[in-house]
Amino acid sequence: MKKAVILLSGGMDSATILAIAMDQGYDCYALSFSYGQRNKIELIAANKIAKASAVKEHQTIEIDLGAFGGSALTADIPIPKNRTEIGGEIPITYVPARNTVFLSYALAYLDVIGADAIFIGVNALDYSGYPDCRPEYIEAFEKMANLATRRGVEGKHPIRIETPLLYMSKAGIITAGAALKVDYGITISCYDPDKKGRACGACDACILRKNGFEEAGFPDPTKYQ
Amino acid sequence: MKKAVILLSGGMDSATILAIAMDQGYDCYALSFSYGQRNKIELIAANKIAKASAVKEHQTIEIDLGAFGGSALTADIPIPKNRTEIGGEIPITYVPARNTVFLSYALAYLDVIGADAIFIGVNALDYSGYPDCRPEYIEAFEKMANLATRRGVEGKHPIRIETPLLYMSKAGIITAGAALKVDYGITISCYDPDKKGRACGACDACILRKNGFEEAGFPDPTKYQ
Repeated sequence: MKKAVILLSGGMDSATILAIAMDQGYDCYALSFSYGQRNKIELIAANKIAKASAVKEHQTIEIDLGAFGGSALTADIPIPKNRTEIGGEIPITYVPARNTVFLSYALAYLDVIGADAIFIGVNALDYSGYPDCRPEYIEAFEKMANLATRRGVEGKHPIRIETPLLYMSKAGIITAGAALKVDYGITISCYDPDKKGRACGACDACILRKNGFEEAGFPDPTKYQ
Repeated sequence: MKKAVILLSGGMDSATILAIAMDQGYDCYALSFSYGQRNKIELIAANKIAKASAVKEHQTIEIDLGAFGGSALTADIPIPKNRTEIGGEIPITYVPARNTVFLSYALAYLDVIGADAIFIGVNALDYSGYPDCRPEYIEAFEKMANLATRRGVEGKHPIRIETPLLYMSKAGIITAGAALKVDYGITISCYDPDKKGRACGACDACILRKNGFEEAGFPDPTKYQ
């Protein structure tokens, strides 16, 4: 069986890539991170998603990205609400080098289990201005990954960083996920949920998600505050 | 002042790159990792080296590379001793994606403090067969780093991954460090030190270090068991 490491945040995008990887016949090894973020509720969602799918293994790694500060998602900086122009400049919710740290751990995991691919739910269309969600970044990481590891040096096929959502709209992601029976009711996207896990409805992530359900013509299963 | 992040392991190579970065006029931000390795004694050495130099800041990040297993340095696998052929195949002391994880955290640190460079003490000559010590790997990481971060996208100059030891022999490193007054007596290289921090004298790292002092014609300040 071919194996893949799936970066599973608990959001709708990562739930969708897990479903896509399963559908492509991969044995899936899910990887989540507890990184001092506000939304620990994401991890509860990630556990639910991993259980609902038949993943081979689900690891959660505790990391301290907040040690350096510099982001509204890890430090005590207000989350921007009701922004009308999403995209363009890099927003305060950017976590320095987050995807690079995540992908590096995924690469360690891949190297140990001898996997072929890492699936990550980055998106270049609906994205919020993060440099580490762009296709040129992913290509550069993939090239580096093949030079960095035992698996890259000794493997028969190159390591691939799979980004099935890269050019999909949020509406397209929802439509694709629904066809694979993803339960979006157990996912969470909000940067600033309340203690019961209900979404704020006003941060960039909530706005993109709400618009996605509307455009896809699917009922939005999100619980709002 | 220009700033640099220095990956400081507590070994002789990282002590030397710190001295080189200071000599080049950088404000130095040292970064160490506690990663479930056998040689926690390295961290004591890293603290001594950081204090002996006038670093601006020294951060130690706790990470769990051992979560995935797969290496004699993080799992309960015997360390090879008295190997006569060092180099060639990838040895059991290889920690999957270690330098990639280390450099990724350094990149997060760089992005927050607005540094220009990361110094890492990799070596392509005396190296022990690790894929993530090769120049092509470092070049690929540097390219990725510039696409990954706010500093890479918005900075006036590209981020550089500085590897001053890349083509130096261990003897050359010792000679260069001695000229910059590096105290190698407080550094440790051994993969398998005893509880008092004394080196085994027989692992790959000890053999390379011993030969280095001999070739350089300097007295070896290492405490052996």
